[in-house]
Amino acid sequence: MDHDTEFMSRALALARRGLGLTRPNPAVGALLVKDGRVIAEGWHRRAGSEHAEVAAIEAADQPLRGATLYCTLEPCCHDGPYKRTPPCTRRIISEGIGRVVVAALDPNPAVDGRGVAALREAGIEVTVGPLAMPALQLNEAFAAAVRLRRPFVHLKAAQTLDGYIATADGDSRWITDKQARTVAHELRAAGDAVVVGAATVRRDNPLLTVRHVAGRQPLRVVLSGCRPLPADSPLFHDRFADRTLVYQPEAGRTHVDLHALLDDLLRRDVQSVLVEGGSRVLSSFLARGLWDRLSLFVAPRILGGGVRTVDGLGIASIADAIALQEVSIERLGNGVLISGYRDPRQLFGSGFRHREVVGHAEAGAVPDALMEEGYVYGNC
Amino acid sequence: MDHDTEFMSRALALARRGLGLTRPNPAVGALLVKDGRVIAEGWHRRAGSEHAEVAAIEAADQPLRGATLYCTLEPCCHDGPYKRTPPCTRRIISEGIGRVVVAALDPNPAVDGRGVAALREAGIEVTVGPLAMPALQLNEAFAAAVRLRRPFVHLKAAQTLDGYIATADGDSRWITDKQARTVAHELRAAGDAVVVGAATVRRDNPLLTVRHVAGRQPLRVVLSGCRPLPADSPLFHDRFADRTLVYQPEAGRTHVDLHALLDDLLRRDVQSVLVEGGSRVLSSFLARGLWDRLSLFVAPRILGGGVRTVDGLGIASIADAIALQEVSIERLGNGVLISGYRDPRQLFGSGFRHREVVGHAEAGAVPDALMEEGYVYGNC
Repeated sequence: MDHDTEFMSRALALARRGLGLTRPNPAVGALLVKDGRVIAEGWHRRAGSEHAEVAAIEAADQPLRGATLYCTLEPCCHDGPYKRTPPCTRRIISEGIGRVVVAALDPNPAVDGRGVAALREAGIEVTVGPLAMPALQLNEAFAAAVRLRRPFVHLKAAQTLDGYIATADGDSRWITDKQARTVAHELRAAGDAVVVGAATVRRDNPLLTVRHVAGRQPLRVVLSGCRPLPADSPLFHDRFADRTLVYQPEAGRTHVDLHALLDDLLRRDVQSVLVEGGSRVLSSFLARGLWDRLSLFVAPRILGGGVRTVDGLGIASIADAIALQEVSIERLGNGVLISGYRDPRQLFGSGFRHREVVGHAEAGAVPDALMEEGYVYGNC
Repeated sequence: MDHDTEFMSRALALARRGLGLTRPNPAVGALLVKDGRVIAEGWHRRAGSEHAEVAAIEAADQPLRGATLYCTLEPCCHDGPYKRTPPCTRRIISEGIGRVVVAALDPNPAVDGRGVAALREAGIEVTVGPLAMPALQLNEAFAAAVRLRRPFVHLKAAQTLDGYIATADGDSRWITDKQARTVAHELRAAGDAVVVGAATVRRDNPLLTVRHVAGRQPLRVVLSGCRPLPADSPLFHDRFADRTLVYQPEAGRTHVDLHALLDDLLRRDVQSVLVEGGSRVLSSFLARGLWDRLSLFVAPRILGGGVRTVDGLGIASIADAIALQEVSIERLGNGVLISGYRDPRQLFGSGFRHREVVGHAEAGAVPDALMEEGYVYGNC
């Protein structure tokens, strides 16, 4: 691993400390390096507090002339009515920092390369690209908010090798093993809301709580059809009952309008949703292109019949199949977690495009630290 | 990687040199180590020629007292009417070799631990287990022949993430990318016969030749139904036309009897078959339990409808689902190859059971050399 990637890997670890706390801002980490040694670290702790770059600068106890600054996200360059901190680029320039390494450009259209341009105009050497994709992934919900103006939609399912999420009778416990279920609960805790269909509530009687990991309880959203939901579901009676929302179809419709659903959830400050099924709900989000990421837990079992994971899309040719992008593959116990994005160019903007040009030349092998933290790229 | 695993990894590489040439014998590699250095290497070249252990012993130019012998398979201990070489255990004992490390016990019921017992009785220290599974996998067709008395049956399919091998119209080109197709052709070249159903011949008009890799052309077997096959198929006209066999159902039946098929193929000296589909043929082998290994290429695409990989098994509960054993997961391009066995205990016998006891304690991390050669275990 080259030095830039090594330092950026540490900056990413710092960024992660702010995960879930910085909203509506992204989680960002930064560190300062002089003569090959880290002299200060910082991360964005919460909206309104100083940005990561400034936190690192404030933490330094020596002059920064000639130092290198590592940032997981492009430094901001804009003032504005809703902005509570001055632009970081101004501070970086005034400190005499000689070089800035940025993992990824800011997906926010208000920045989108302008921060890097401002630094370069001031004569600072700027490198963009090391660990761009992990840096962007860290803030995928932020990217959806600023670029797509809707919650980040993460589709999740656990299926057999041959693509069934349940037997014909609806039995789905347990397709995957404990290791996969733990990761599934991590995904649940990472989102602001979990969405399921009425059929799943009827069939599985799910709790939709965060159990195998520590984490926040997301909002529980049930998409109801025309039939009443089981009144004795724990979703309506447990200690999180006030965190359950039921959406019903408009008069004359049989299904909840998903665009309207996402609009309403965004108004409720939901930045990301994890759609956990069932088959019809997953297929509906897919059919409408209303999704950003799909994570599929695949168990090494053959069922040879039952409820299909996805059905009824009616795609007529392989060339028209929905192709996941930026696919990651992670072994979990005896199974595998396959995850990918619908359209990372649209979601992440210039940051992603830039990565394609610079990232490949810079990146090389995957740093071990990132592998451990679950970012798996390349051959495994 | 400990020393035993390191030396065994080299012995496995030697064993691979004999792959496809030693029939009906297994491919075996051996090396001799003295004072921590390799002093001789050997492998079994073809039936009738010396076994790997003896080849290594013959290649040594110094006394072997106190040396350690590494063998990928348990040394033979039996004489017999069909056996062309004397038992290796006798030779090992007479050379004064001090220690023998064996990757796996011989699946052949005529050996099955007796070789190791003979060595121990003679006072030789014997370790069993390092890299047992790769050593057994190397000779999976041999194991099926000696233990199941039928060809090794390897089921193979390429599917979308959601479990479809083709669109509703039968379009299946190309679900997977070139990297997966190359590995698929390696599988084809490794088998003695490739089996497809009539529907696949009609729909895909396949060549079933080995193209993306160097290798032997396997027998091409078509399972015909009641309708005639397309007379202009290249299977009946290309330069391998004399390597095409068509099996038809017995009078009054609609499908070829798979037991009878495998019996007949074994009589034709077919030790292993690769079943390439389609859906009905794969499902039939699965439903009858007539398979040993399943390899599924999964492309990161969603089709949302079409021809399912497996269908009609009617398995009523997740607990009864067919669970793959000894699952390997390998990333190929943007997709993943998931492979596993039906019943490795039955297929490999004591060698596999022994591995469970000894292998875990001995093995540790996967040696890099094996990762490169495509054996992927554990977390990736």
